[in-house]
Amino acid sequence: MESTRILLEAHEIPTHWYNVAADLPSPPAPPMGPDGAPVKPEQLAAIFPPAIIEQEMSAQRWIEIPQEVREIFRLWRPSPLVRAVRLEAALGTPAKIFFKYEGVSPAGSHKPNSAVPQAYFNKQAGIKRLTTETGAGQWGSSLALAGQLFGMEVRVYMVKVSYEQKPYRRLMMQTWGAEVFSSPSNLTQTGRKALAEIPDTPGSLGLAISEAVEEAAGRADTNYALGSVLNHVVVHQSIIGLEAKKQFDKIGLYPDVIVAPCGGGSSFGGIALPFLGDKAAGDKRAEKLRAVAVEPSSCPSLTKGLYTYDFGDSSGFTPMMKMYTLGHDFVPPGIHAGGLRYHGCSQLLSQLYHEGLIEAVAVPQLATFDAGVQFARCEGIIPAPESCHAIRVAIDEALRCKQTGEAKTILFNLTGHGHFDMSSYERYFSGELEDFDYPAEEVQKLLAKLPKVG
Amino acid sequence: MESTRILLEAHEIPTHWYNVAADLPSPPAPPMGPDGAPVKPEQLAAIFPPAIIEQEMSAQRWIEIPQEVREIFRLWRPSPLVRAVRLEAALGTPAKIFFKYEGVSPAGSHKPNSAVPQAYFNKQAGIKRLTTETGAGQWGSSLALAGQLFGMEVRVYMVKVSYEQKPYRRLMMQTWGAEVFSSPSNLTQTGRKALAEIPDTPGSLGLAISEAVEEAAGRADTNYALGSVLNHVVVHQSIIGLEAKKQFDKIGLYPDVIVAPCGGGSSFGGIALPFLGDKAAGDKRAEKLRAVAVEPSSCPSLTKGLYTYDFGDSSGFTPMMKMYTLGHDFVPPGIHAGGLRYHGCSQLLSQLYHEGLIEAVAVPQLATFDAGVQFARCEGIIPAPESCHAIRVAIDEALRCKQTGEAKTILFNLTGHGHFDMSSYERYFSGELEDFDYPAEEVQKLLAKLPKVG
Repeated sequence: MESTRILLEAHEIPTHWYNVAADLPSPPAPPMGPDGAPVKPEQLAAIFPPAIIEQEMSAQRWIEIPQEVREIFRLWRPSPLVRAVRLEAALGTPAKIFFKYEGVSPAGSHKPNSAVPQAYFNKQAGIKRLTTETGAGQWGSSLALAGQLFGMEVRVYMVKVSYEQKPYRRLMMQTWGAEVFSSPSNLTQTGRKALAEIPDTPGSLGLAISEAVEEAAGRADTNYALGSVLNHVVVHQSIIGLEAKKQFDKIGLYPDVIVAPCGGGSSFGGIALPFLGDKAAGDKRAEKLRAVAVEPSSCPSLTKGLYTYDFGDSSGFTPMMKMYTLGHDFVPPGIHAGGLRYHGCSQLLSQLYHEGLIEAVAVPQLATFDAGVQFARCEGIIPAPESCHAIRVAIDEALRCKQTGEAKTILFNLTGHGHFDMSSYERYFSGELEDFDYPAEEVQKLLAKLPKVG
Repeated sequence: MESTRILLEAHEIPTHWYNVAADLPSPPAPPMGPDGAPVKPEQLAAIFPPAIIEQEMSAQRWIEIPQEVREIFRLWRPSPLVRAVRLEAALGTPAKIFFKYEGVSPAGSHKPNSAVPQAYFNKQAGIKRLTTETGAGQWGSSLALAGQLFGMEVRVYMVKVSYEQKPYRRLMMQTWGAEVFSSPSNLTQTGRKALAEIPDTPGSLGLAISEAVEEAAGRADTNYALGSVLNHVVVHQSIIGLEAKKQFDKIGLYPDVIVAPCGGGSSFGGIALPFLGDKAAGDKRAEKLRAVAVEPSSCPSLTKGLYTYDFGDSSGFTPMMKMYTLGHDFVPPGIHAGGLRYHGCSQLLSQLYHEGLIEAVAVPQLATFDAGVQFARCEGIIPAPESCHAIRVAIDEALRCKQTGEAKTILFNLTGHGHFDMSSYERYFSGELEDFDYPAEEVQKLLAKLPKVG
């Protein structure tokens, strides 16, 4: 019986992360501080440990994964590479469709790939507590898990509306020992101010970030951890693509097209960049490789945003980063792929897109759920709404192959399962799910307001 | 780096199921029909296909797993055998603790191990539709998945109170294309009668079974499928233990103690019986093997029930089976391990227990959640409430080893994840979870009412 799940042993967990910054055609644009000058490492030291700051600014191609981190990873890694033979048959395509399944982590997504090293490097630096924010709870639960595994306290500021409407992710965090507070809270100045102004505010991710950063900046034993966008997160996530390369080697194949959902950029960067590294190194197999970032048409930062300096958060607390952005004031419609509701995109990916090295496509919400349900009915796994974006485009690519007769090898990132997103499927089945138009004028207005930097 | 997850390749999926009926010290007591005589195969033909009836009555030791079933299994099987090194360290025990993780199936439990072959054998017999009942939804979702994978229609009668209170499992079934109806429904005579009598009834598993059986018995294209208790289900689940044996072979170990939750008996039988088969065959390694069935102290059929003939369902529609039972009218308290709320126990396991070949222990609910949370904080995976029963006893065994200094090898069945049970964890953390006393007098009364058969 032919194997459709390509597995690796624990000793095959990669020993080094790949950092695409080493292979960029031009030097990356530096983040800019409030003084209008490039951010210095010491400015980040109030909330990040030295190793993370070094990774954030590193141009080294390979960065060692500490043994302690790899030992935690073997609780669920290497994750399987799976050939979707039943989906291929249902589509009648000559294409070979593979997915890397990151939903096998205890938190159910790829997010622990960065939460674990972030907790580790903080612990190494003598930090005892971590703060973070979370919306729907994917990142918060991953950091809760990571903190627990290293014996660190974790405090999560969870956007009030999610805290109240999505109790199961909150309970997951509590099961892993984290403290979870509804944000805005009365634990921080930012929170108290927000509550005083609007007592019944639903909260926002921007506010929750501000609360987490304020607490971390004000306590010597406490740091802050972020789950996407930043360079070190993209570096950590490269483990996905590095494993996938080993798995393709085992079966003597190499992908022609790589597809992944793209919000802040950690899942797309994670799977695609190690293969683009092959391309940069002149690997013949990667010569014609296409890497396609899939974003929601309601939040199309790469396909309709501007490549400019903008804040990473909605409140303007972070340094400004050069990236594709819809403007930091942009409030994406309430689509169900909460992990893709971000106004910008990772600096590294933005630069690669700007230089024409990766592609991007925007897809409407309903079509992604169509694809997710078709996938679940063939392969069993019920995908997270974010992952459905990649499935949509992978299926479209496979159907194009059916037209042209090409037997392409397609790889997509199945970033997580949808066990905590069944209410989204409920809305889909009941016909309540909507597509959203891109509010072009509004975004142009938001972008016009941006300070000019760099 | 030492591997703590022992994996098998697709070609190592067992080719045959193990049937403990071949190794019983005395012939099994036959099920009795409404006429007081042993049930004949043809009496089952209205709702089961020939292959299933044959398996139900078979005394053959090995039963071939069809290639088509094994091909579906490789979507998630072989499931990993995992050494819980972090739990061992936290307990400070010299024991080696292993778990077989069945939560990797798309439905999140071991139930698809029987749902898939049941769908297959029905399809082979020309059946187009399957009916079943479900309480919390573990079995219903597994059959929905299996039906979808073989292109069959599945109709699930879901107990009304669960249908209304647990929408996510229902949505899972719908995602896999099943029709789900609140039971009692107006689709069957049984349902209409129940609704006429008590319009706002919360429903019951007994009623839902009756509806599913009535529909299957009345339509030539439709059969019925049951997820536990019956012999063929226990046979199908043997794949768990058979894989575990191969995995232990790879690392040169053999378990001293096997622990699993026990309701109807499919998960305990699934993991333990193939090892007991070794014992029956005179395998030296299995000489001192102990197999411990763990039941809730609120529903202690093995430890406090009577070994006698009783109905399999609460309405008295099924044949009578010789088993440990609390009486078919017994309504277990509303504990959170819904899969263990069954008044009886599989005939095969009951006989093994009666003959002293397996052990049983009853544990209170709160202690099982204590164990589940401890496990989650060490190993990451958040276990289903049913699985927490096995974890409790595995931890207790490991702690005894700490006292005695014995380095025993403990294996438990991690039957599923708790992603759809987070509301139970909520009650645990908020202190609302209760332990229940065994209502001894009530059960004696229920048992006294049983008709005497056999």
